[in-house]
Amino acid sequence: MKADIFIIGTGLIGGSLGLALKGSPLINCIYGYDSHPESLQTAKNIGAIDEAVSLVNGASKSDIIFICSPLSHYQSIITEITPVLQEDTIITDVGSTKEEVMEIFNSLPNNIWGIGGHPMAGSEITGINGADRYLFENAVYVITPAKTPSEQVSKLIAILKNTGAKIIIQDAKTHDELVATVSHIPHLAAVALVALTQGKRDNLTLAAGGFRDTTRIASSNPELWEDILLFNRNHILNKLDELVLILQDIKNTILEEDNKKLLSILSAAKQIRDEIPKARKGLIPSYHDVVCIVPDEPGIIGKLGFILGEVNINIVDIEILRVREGDGGTIRLGVTDAAAARKATETLLNNNIKAWIR
Amino acid sequence: MKADIFIIGTGLIGGSLGLALKGSPLINCIYGYDSHPESLQTAKNIGAIDEAVSLVNGASKSDIIFICSPLSHYQSIITEITPVLQEDTIITDVGSTKEEVMEIFNSLPNNIWGIGGHPMAGSEITGINGADRYLFENAVYVITPAKTPSEQVSKLIAILKNTGAKIIIQDAKTHDELVATVSHIPHLAAVALVALTQGKRDNLTLAAGGFRDTTRIASSNPELWEDILLFNRNHILNKLDELVLILQDIKNTILEEDNKKLLSILSAAKQIRDEIPKARKGLIPSYHDVVCIVPDEPGIIGKLGFILGEVNINIVDIEILRVREGDGGTIRLGVTDAAAARKATETLLNNNIKAWIR
Repeated sequence: MKADIFIIGTGLIGGSLGLALKGSPLINCIYGYDSHPESLQTAKNIGAIDEAVSLVNGASKSDIIFICSPLSHYQSIITEITPVLQEDTIITDVGSTKEEVMEIFNSLPNNIWGIGGHPMAGSEITGINGADRYLFENAVYVITPAKTPSEQVSKLIAILKNTGAKIIIQDAKTHDELVATVSHIPHLAAVALVALTQGKRDNLTLAAGGFRDTTRIASSNPELWEDILLFNRNHILNKLDELVLILQDIKNTILEEDNKKLLSILSAAKQIRDEIPKARKGLIPSYHDVVCIVPDEPGIIGKLGFILGEVNINIVDIEILRVREGDGGTIRLGVTDAAAARKATETLLNNNIKAWIR
Repeated sequence: MKADIFIIGTGLIGGSLGLALKGSPLINCIYGYDSHPESLQTAKNIGAIDEAVSLVNGASKSDIIFICSPLSHYQSIITEITPVLQEDTIITDVGSTKEEVMEIFNSLPNNIWGIGGHPMAGSEITGINGADRYLFENAVYVITPAKTPSEQVSKLIAILKNTGAKIIIQDAKTHDELVATVSHIPHLAAVALVALTQGKRDNLTLAAGGFRDTTRIASSNPELWEDILLFNRNHILNKLDELVLILQDIKNTILEEDNKKLLSILSAAKQIRDEIPKARKGLIPSYHDVVCIVPDEPGIIGKLGFILGEVNINIVDIEILRVREGDGGTIRLGVTDAAAARKATETLLNNNIKAWIR
């Protein structure tokens, strides 16, 4: 039996979800609701939802409900829709933390199934205008089913598979601790590093690539992050303490000029960091890199792509490592395998472009 | 009168410097020395130096000496070459910290001019094999002349201009404090963030783009960084204390659930971070970005470049924001000005490629 879907909050994530689920043979109708009528109308116009409905109306006739609203709105949404839900409805969400969400879901009636969800994908464009049916493709999508029976979990997973995401089942606590470690604390560190410059233009004169990479995420939406940080408060407080201890240990190592220990701290970090692409194998494509030096002229990137396209090499990643106005640049090209990297290098060299495998 | 140049240490920086200075009408001969004979031979073979010499021989017949060795070797090099130096020789270096270097230079005889230098450029390839004559193009190159007369400073600047770098004069203390703030402390923060994961593969399952950006520099050469951190010890210790205070302030803000203050901390960081490209105007080209969605097929990047090259638009930066195997990707293109961004968007749309100005 085909499922009716209800998306509450048709912004970036809700809209992208609608577009990604559209046309699935498992789905009958995609209903949508948003407290901003304009956003809802756009979602309808771009085909992210089939029908715009009220909160209660959509909730009363759907089999799977996706809450795609800010975390702080969950409780009032649940309170409003609970009285009208059909038996065996699945309620899921897309919020960045899961323990508090699972607590809210715990208050649902016995025959309603609350399964937390966290698709790890975003876009620089917020709202429905950033909606993209490929947003979740190859992204990690964590679900936290807690004690939900496997029949319901499988039903949700079958639907989510249409997004192309890699679905991982975790418990809410593990999820929240992990995202504190690899997302929320790095975010706060980036914010602190920016604060250290005091925003003085002179202090930024020497800021180069390392500073820009390390602090990039400090440019994210403050309101969104305020929400996330407060909802994952306990894990963040613990991990912030751990981070400060690590920094103080580094400080003492430098203070005592303990060269040997300093080198071992730096080397251990390098070793872990170098492992990341391997650790993620299967989740993201692993690239083989070719670096080449090209002159600065209009169409040079096109020429590179054309030369390699002609020998059927697909550039799956590209990065400009250095650029010299009027004089050229150094470009990194990611290709799919080692053979393609060799062939690309050879082809570029034959075209008088200095190139090597990284 | 043309200058004779001596490069001590023909690795990545020394070799790149030789290649960049090559052919300058201000230069007579580029001598080179390296404690590794292979590296010296390669430097000669690729034309980074004109002649391989001994340390004393090169020092005795050069007008400008570039020390491009690890910081820990400076003192012994200076001690060895001082007796043979000609009057009015300029000694400069390329090390990452400047106060300790200037102290070493202080011991030079009165008629020898020590001017610290720090080209802020690097490469993922270490050693002479990474040598690139464009390495310094558009990079910031700090010099710290202290009390050197302007005649000698101008002479060095005239030579350095051949590298295409943007030369900035600073005093050593200011330089070292700035690089502690925008380079060394971010480096240690990246190391600490990686250490926080304890290297457990499970802890990295959810590591996404934010973590990768923030910790990228933790993959750098540990030996090089050990040297830098110990040479800039005092500023680093001070700034580490400041960073910990900022993190503790953030912690207390979250602990007290002070939403208003948390939002203001996040917003202030965003505002400063968003300013960075503007603050660097004139030092790096400022880009205007166009984002487009393309299918995943061999040659698609070539096609993009070709379409835009035909209307004379130069892609000066390119980044693959998302990639979906077999299904396409979202690409950011940097172009030189707002008019080019408009024209690029229009051209792509005319070619049925979804595109917008970011």
